[in-house]
Amino acid sequence: MDVRDLPTQLVEAHRLIQDHIHQTPILTSTYLNTLSGAQLFFKCENFQKIGAFKMRGALHAVLTTSEEERSNGFVTHSSGNHGQAVARAAQLAGVKAYIVMPKGAPTIKIEAVKAYGGIVTLCDNSEQARIETCQKIIAQTQANFVHPYDNTAVILGQSTCAKEIYDHQPELDYLLCPVGGGGLASGSILATQAFSPTTKVVLCEPQNADDAYRSFTQKKHQKVVQPNTVADGLKTSLGERNFKIILDGAHAIFTVSEEEIIEAMRLIWERLKIICESSCSLPLAVVLKYPQLFKNQKIALILTGGNVDLDNLPF
Amino acid sequence: MDVRDLPTQLVEAHRLIQDHIHQTPILTSTYLNTLSGAQLFFKCENFQKIGAFKMRGALHAVLTTSEEERSNGFVTHSSGNHGQAVARAAQLAGVKAYIVMPKGAPTIKIEAVKAYGGIVTLCDNSEQARIETCQKIIAQTQANFVHPYDNTAVILGQSTCAKEIYDHQPELDYLLCPVGGGGLASGSILATQAFSPTTKVVLCEPQNADDAYRSFTQKKHQKVVQPNTVADGLKTSLGERNFKIILDGAHAIFTVSEEEIIEAMRLIWERLKIICESSCSLPLAVVLKYPQLFKNQKIALILTGGNVDLDNLPF
Repeated sequence: MDVRDLPTQLVEAHRLIQDHIHQTPILTSTYLNTLSGAQLFFKCENFQKIGAFKMRGALHAVLTTSEEERSNGFVTHSSGNHGQAVARAAQLAGVKAYIVMPKGAPTIKIEAVKAYGGIVTLCDNSEQARIETCQKIIAQTQANFVHPYDNTAVILGQSTCAKEIYDHQPELDYLLCPVGGGGLASGSILATQAFSPTTKVVLCEPQNADDAYRSFTQKKHQKVVQPNTVADGLKTSLGERNFKIILDGAHAIFTVSEEEIIEAMRLIWERLKIICESSCSLPLAVVLKYPQLFKNQKIALILTGGNVDLDNLPF
Repeated sequence: MDVRDLPTQLVEAHRLIQDHIHQTPILTSTYLNTLSGAQLFFKCENFQKIGAFKMRGALHAVLTTSEEERSNGFVTHSSGNHGQAVARAAQLAGVKAYIVMPKGAPTIKIEAVKAYGGIVTLCDNSEQARIETCQKIIAQTQANFVHPYDNTAVILGQSTCAKEIYDHQPELDYLLCPVGGGGLASGSILATQAFSPTTKVVLCEPQNADDAYRSFTQKKHQKVVQPNTVADGLKTSLGERNFKIILDGAHAIFTVSEEEIIEAMRLIWERLKIICESSCSLPLAVVLKYPQLFKNQKIALILTGGNVDLDNLPF
């Protein structure tokens, strides 16, 4: 356990990675403000290095590993963005990255991992298969495992996204972000506790993959069951460390339907003129679903990534 | 004829409109720099008010019309973005806008014109029909006609885009922009002559709508014949004023095929993570078509607009 206070830890995490990441822009839209009746600030992690916020956590995990341990390289399992992030972070550190990906992952994401020098191993699309494949690679290479979200260094890295929001946009009433494994969600909560404790963190989840919602409302960690959502970044189960931080610090978790996700995604593409993944659109879907709750509020919404397979759009 | 020197005129045009437009960002991509072997600076007019550079010219035309003349409102014909721009500019000036649009214009563009308070009249899809419909409206209302490109105030307004590029990115070897009617092309040439005379302006045109290329190479103004291109913003014939400025100041005009346009559009979407129209992708298509010419050069590329009908993507 790090004995330094939380703000100091997060400032240090940001300092450590900032030369290798983008300070991503915050966009606004008069149209979407009018539509929602709120003041919306979209933090554009789709413009982040490797196209997603995951670069922050992976880079922080790699850079906080000692030089000696680093030399064996890194290994992880990921349906996409985290795999790219670990591959790129390891490339920056000059070491190998072994990325385990499920068969059926979007082609654009597999190719991107390879372009960053990652060594890809495809496995069956189950948590069990991913873990076993990683364990085999670790046995052969002694590579360091970087869990996509249930990892303190990753969580601290993801917290730098919300930290940047608070650096540039003080006095926010709400911060909304999607929740899948909970890396960004728990990091955003830590940054909020450190830098903007009056801001309420609302997590946004697909109805069809609602383990975080059930875990939070029942105060008991639960796994996702047969997730079936276009938001493929949010199909994973909440991690243990992530659950604890979320239970302690989330204001609420709201779920949205597939139709609401797709409608919000289309609005972002048409109105903000940017490419973002379906997972990104959950915060806007939640704001539009509960207009009375969010009316006249100042709200940051994290757009998590932009690695979209243009041949498989949901609209 | 304005007797002030050109730089003074363009600075004044920018000053006049700057409170109502965005200073749009200039994006870069490590991937696209590597792919092209050049240093590319993408000026993102897809993020401009109304989603396209056309806001600049329309606003300048409206604001340089006397208060008395303005009161009758404005009329124009446009397949889309210029119509939205005149509607929004007239709305800002508190007067009416009559927008003549061809049947078959993208739904998103017709709806957007109405959302800005524009009064839409649909007509047959021929230049003759557009002009006659405008003339009828002028006879009824005495509204001021704002030609989409063959209009000095519009050209000076469009020049502010390249002016912003030179304000932020000096010492460019090339400025590349698409050419349709020639409003942006001629405005970009004037700004280059005024602020960066050593930069070469290269215009980019679809092979299937190559009237500017033919006019330029044969030094004789020619009309477009049966244009058939996905770049629907570039189907119009070059204007008379525009032709003269282009003949005087363009370094070259290059044409690209439909396949090259679509491939470049997809690269911009996937790599810059932004939505832009097919017309925007011609400059990148030209850079990728002539790698030897553009190798190691510093090149600005104007991305002209982002008003895309997501139900009719070319890929």
